[in-house]
Amino acid sequence: MKELQDRIIKDGRVLPGNIVKVDGFMNHNVDIALQRRIAKEFKAHFEGREITKIMTVEASGIPLATITADEFGVPLLFAKKAKSDNIEGGLVKSEIFSYTYKKKVTLMVSAEWLSPDDKVLVVDDFMATGQALNGVCDIIGQVGAELVGVCIAIEKGFQGGGDKLREKGIDVCSLAIIEKAEPGCIEFRE
Amino acid sequence: MKELQDRIIKDGRVLPGNIVKVDGFMNHNVDIALQRRIAKEFKAHFEGREITKIMTVEASGIPLATITADEFGVPLLFAKKAKSDNIEGGLVKSEIFSYTYKKKVTLMVSAEWLSPDDKVLVVDDFMATGQALNGVCDIIGQVGAELVGVCIAIEKGFQGGGDKLREKGIDVCSLAIIEKAEPGCIEFRE
Repeated sequence: MKELQDRIIKDGRVLPGNIVKVDGFMNHNVDIALQRRIAKEFKAHFEGREITKIMTVEASGIPLATITADEFGVPLLFAKKAKSDNIEGGLVKSEIFSYTYKKKVTLMVSAEWLSPDDKVLVVDDFMATGQALNGVCDIIGQVGAELVGVCIAIEKGFQGGGDKLREKGIDVCSLAIIEKAEPGCIEFRE
Repeated sequence: MKELQDRIIKDGRVLPGNIVKVDGFMNHNVDIALQRRIAKEFKAHFEGREITKIMTVEASGIPLATITADEFGVPLLFAKKAKSDNIEGGLVKSEIFSYTYKKKVTLMVSAEWLSPDDKVLVVDDFMATGQALNGVCDIIGQVGAELVGVCIAIEKGFQGGGDKLREKGIDVCSLAIIEKAEPGCIEFRE
């Protein structure tokens, strides 16, 4: 998606450790109009496929997943990272290592809101090693629901998470795959 | 908002400790079409007021805040609860006690994305004691931006958070104020 790549070049920054910072429009201060255009690309990619639910992981993927759910006209279910009073009993869990927070995190979904009949599209703003998305896909598999595909706005191609999903035959729609991220230099996969 | 009150009666549940569980349509599995109708009520309440930014706190308020930002045509800025690689330098912070997680939490916003010129509407799915919202209002005040008002889908009136904001002269738009929450019995403020 040319607009997204141009925006990453214009407003993104590379921090030490190949961290690509896009918090001015993607995952802290969120340009909602851009999220809508990204969601329309996801819709076009999965045109004609039956989707009953959008899933993501809290917290930064929620704005894009919300707009995508709005675009598809289906509910959004987001996996939680900590047990709260608002979630109880019948949990489906998957343990992951969070690249962002540098620690083990348990993703949790209440079994009540995901059924074997669901046809799920997983959405996230960012994918690096793909740990969080693997956790969500694992939860979908545990329940016996169908994983229709994975939608990513920005994929760090050089960290391999997306390609591992593709090797498993999963339909991954990534709109900007970054192959190189160094201060002052961001390059995308053709 | 009659539709929201009816939905709370129909699908909400009261757990021990006056916890009102609405995770089937508000803050885990999210009915996006309902969030849109809630956002339209917020829009009607603040009609004619200049709004430049919607703010909320991660994570459960993000879907409603996203749809509200979409409805107002402005960006969304969400306060983070933990330091991540994606947020650095120039932070504005406020320490709160989270009723949901039963612990102290520091809310953080990158100063870069909030300016004294901003006219901010704060949105959340739920308000009990109002700690999280007070933290966001505190951050807005620290930056010198204008707090236009506070939009809440479900307020637990008996926990006093909303009334404290009203006493300060803040325009609080709550669509369902629960005055009594006991198993099998939920009552709303007239």
